[in-house]
Amino acid sequence: MERSLRLSGYIEAERDRIIETLFDYLRIPSISSQPDHAADVRRSADFTAALLYEAGLDNVEILETDGAPSVYADWLHAGDGAPTAVVYGHHDVQPVDPLDAWTSPPFEPVIVDGECRARGAVDDKGQVLYEIEAVRGLLQTEGSIPCNVKFLIEGEEEVGSPHFEALLERERERLACDVVVVSDTGMWSNDVPSFCTGMRGLVAFDVHIRTARIDLHSGSFGGAVPNPAHLAARLVAALHDDAGRVAVPGFYDDVRPLLPAEKESFERLPFDAEQWREMAGTVALVGEEGFSTLERIWARPTCDVVGITVGYGGLGIKTIVPAEANVKVSFRLVADQSPVKVADAFERWVHEVLPDWAEVRIERMGGVAAALTPADHPAVAALRSAIGRVFGTEPLLTREGGSGPEEALARVLAAPVLYLGVGLPDDRFHAPNERMIMDMFWKGLLSAGELWHDLRATLS
Amino acid sequence: MERSLRLSGYIEAERDRIIETLFDYLRIPSISSQPDHAADVRRSADFTAALLYEAGLDNVEILETDGAPSVYADWLHAGDGAPTAVVYGHHDVQPVDPLDAWTSPPFEPVIVDGECRARGAVDDKGQVLYEIEAVRGLLQTEGSIPCNVKFLIEGEEEVGSPHFEALLERERERLACDVVVVSDTGMWSNDVPSFCTGMRGLVAFDVHIRTARIDLHSGSFGGAVPNPAHLAARLVAALHDDAGRVAVPGFYDDVRPLLPAEKESFERLPFDAEQWREMAGTVALVGEEGFSTLERIWARPTCDVVGITVGYGGLGIKTIVPAEANVKVSFRLVADQSPVKVADAFERWVHEVLPDWAEVRIERMGGVAAALTPADHPAVAALRSAIGRVFGTEPLLTREGGSGPEEALARVLAAPVLYLGVGLPDDRFHAPNERMIMDMFWKGLLSAGELWHDLRATLS
Repeated sequence: MERSLRLSGYIEAERDRIIETLFDYLRIPSISSQPDHAADVRRSADFTAALLYEAGLDNVEILETDGAPSVYADWLHAGDGAPTAVVYGHHDVQPVDPLDAWTSPPFEPVIVDGECRARGAVDDKGQVLYEIEAVRGLLQTEGSIPCNVKFLIEGEEEVGSPHFEALLERERERLACDVVVVSDTGMWSNDVPSFCTGMRGLVAFDVHIRTARIDLHSGSFGGAVPNPAHLAARLVAALHDDAGRVAVPGFYDDVRPLLPAEKESFERLPFDAEQWREMAGTVALVGEEGFSTLERIWARPTCDVVGITVGYGGLGIKTIVPAEANVKVSFRLVADQSPVKVADAFERWVHEVLPDWAEVRIERMGGVAAALTPADHPAVAALRSAIGRVFGTEPLLTREGGSGPEEALARVLAAPVLYLGVGLPDDRFHAPNERMIMDMFWKGLLSAGELWHDLRATLS
Repeated sequence: MERSLRLSGYIEAERDRIIETLFDYLRIPSISSQPDHAADVRRSADFTAALLYEAGLDNVEILETDGAPSVYADWLHAGDGAPTAVVYGHHDVQPVDPLDAWTSPPFEPVIVDGECRARGAVDDKGQVLYEIEAVRGLLQTEGSIPCNVKFLIEGEEEVGSPHFEALLERERERLACDVVVVSDTGMWSNDVPSFCTGMRGLVAFDVHIRTARIDLHSGSFGGAVPNPAHLAARLVAALHDDAGRVAVPGFYDDVRPLLPAEKESFERLPFDAEQWREMAGTVALVGEEGFSTLERIWARPTCDVVGITVGYGGLGIKTIVPAEANVKVSFRLVADQSPVKVADAFERWVHEVLPDWAEVRIERMGGVAAALTPADHPAVAALRSAIGRVFGTEPLLTREGGSGPEEALARVLAAPVLYLGVGLPDDRFHAPNERMIMDMFWKGLLSAGELWHDLRATLS
């Protein structure tokens, strides 16, 4: 770590207090999916508010929603021409089951071998805290921040942010900004700093196929009546062509291709496909022809059947022709694909593939567009430069294959999203023994501090 | 009913007693699938034994098995050159759920509108009773039976006869016979008497396909890892070709075609396809091209997937790529198809259809060959003539699409099987308000009495 970075001295002086604060934060079991932890989630919101207040921010406020509360605070004294940023993170955490797989209790944080072990260490309290401490450090050591900063720390991210978009709409004016900084993602590795520029979207369907009122005896009827298992199979088998491409007409029409810089960045990542396959615990790597594994999971739209349920699923056999089938189909979308357009195309296609006489009912679920910050956006250059100074090497570009509230942030606030995150792939997100490597934590804090200067320089 | 039939007078004289006996038999809740009814199944065996004893049969014996008991009795005084027959039926019954759908309690038989309502009325106590009464009547009125008769009344038919074949093997000598008379099937309708000449066989498979250790996150992995739902669909979709034929190589190689007499008989049955479709409660009739509905369910081998279970089956969606799939596949077989040969071909084919890297495990279940009595067998002529006299019109030939213990009877005892049964399609077999139309019961009794004379004439 270079001594010349702006917050190196602050960290030196405040290290023990910051660790104590982190531990206090992590001790709150703010599990948003479990109703009996609702009071803890509120306590965690209050604690977040106190951190923001002590850091020197103004207008600290608990923002109520129809679910768990978010926390708001701002510092708007950066002066004429300074850009304004919203910092997003979340103070709720995942459940802890199976408890006996933890080497230390999930809500009794410890630092062992340089890593802080606790639920929420990396997802996301640790990452929220270094953003707050970076602002606190700048205010304490320099008396000001180069940008106007607005914190928005959510309390329901781990349950799919059900009330977050409504909150954004309601607070749209107060949250007006030039850029969003999301502090909830990760890097390739300690040696290979990186940041992502986008996440995939999602749209999903529950397809119900019925061919009879009730299950029929396969001896008396089999061979002369339709079998919805066969129809479901025909549908699912037709989803992909022989090249692994999604066969729904028009599916790829609007897909935005990778920029050369992104493609090159993906190729420079030290990705070992065989190691990744083993980590995934799968028997093979397959997918759309003509694309690498990283392109397939980050930058290409995909279709996966999440479940098929037809007929008898118990032990042995039952002599029936089933009456109905359920197929759950999910699509991951990439930039410029419209969830509505894809959904309409899929629903039309289902009715084309299945015979007219089948009773087909399709429920549409989800419908989140992909979030993508163009790799050539000036804010991306700022993030690249801030991380580069802290890590001593230029970060590579990645993407995330999943979907989160980032698309709503970008869309409702009409601002590009930057992903500053220091989680590592083996930090056990959502799993027992979640951890934050403390070296990454301090680098995250330094990067957050640097970023405000770079953003001021590029966005003013 | 013609007055000239041998047992008309017997029925006239004994009608009330026979109905009382039927009621007493039906009052025993001999549900073989429910362990708490085991004592009732035994009581039902004892009752059957008493009926046989009172009818005048010899060597009445409860035959113990590793499950519920069967009942044996014989009458072997028909003299030189007389053929010997085994009469098969069962004294156990189906469960009665849903109880509140019954118009009268299932084990409190009543006669309403000429039909006896009770569990077991038609399946199979009613049909066992008229066989016993026919023998009793002949012994009472004529002092002898034209054939040697051996009764074998099973107690586990409704749970798939798990110990029946072992019993046949054990008692093979005692059961030696020239013909088997099964009294457990039905006719086309009251106006259109018929009997079946065979039942389909069955072989089934539990196919397990695994592609990963655990379900994977569809955002992080989807598009680059295999999905067993897609493989299961590929397998099931490939089971049939566009003409509705089973695509497993060699599947049809040994299929015995219908005899012209059978084909003609099928065509003479007053079958209304649209009415049958409505009765089945299905949206369409489909199947192997080039065959009628009756041919498809009776005389053609078929393949039906009984169940597919992959991934998430609850409400909404789950963002996973499933790790494993289960597909249950059943084949109904017809005469001359070997279950083992079909099973071997299917298992080879599965491994050809699925990629090498998929972990595939196949469990074989069942494995019963079809049972078929050639329509031109002399015993068939005897049954045709007996039924024809009672109903006043020549019966047509049918087949049954299901599978039962008949194949084991034919194979182990090396004898043709005759199906004398008076159940009607809407007698609610296995359902609430099971019934026996009493007119059919008396005709069954008369037919059973006639049959011994016809068999003596044709088989001696």
